Amino acid sequence: MKIVEDLVGKEVVNTEAVVVGKVADLEFDEITQMVDSLIIKKGGLSETLNISKSENVIPYDMISKIGDKILLRDTFAEF
Amino acid sequence: MKIVEDLVGKEVVNTEAVVVGKVADLEFDEITQMVDSLIIKKGGLSETLNISKSENVIPYDMISKIGDKILLRDTFAEF
Repeated sequence: MKIVEDLVGKEVVNTEAVVVGKVADLEFDEITQMVDSLIIKKGGLSETLNISKSENVIPYDMISKIGDKILLRDTFAEF
Repeated sequence: MKIVEDLVGKEVVNTEAVVVGKVADLEFDEITQMVDSLIIKKGGLSETLNISKSENVIPYDMISKIGDKILLRDTFAEF
């Protein structure tokens, strides 16, 4: 799986079927070589205008499944 | 370290001090949660025009140090 091509921009959906945001970036530990968390941003006009300040971090452990969407294990607090 | 913000676009330099390309993407194993390799592209006009076909994969083990540049442990075959 490619990170930029396959993960960035993908919608993150919680167990309540709510889209909590899209993957903007991933936090990476260069020593362990592991991806620690997803950095997601809420869409909308502020994102289009690139003035969005709302950014949230989802620990990788909270991911249930990665497919066309990224499913989370629980509801995950909304922004 | 953020992958998109801090790694993508960074120049990869081998032990001969040759820039072998820039990080275009990273290959990721969703099961082990680990980054396996860097996908790099050679710059130049073809990249600017987005018609570049030259893409190469560098195993993560081959990285010596990540800083302003990404240093490799050896010469790494050029494109």
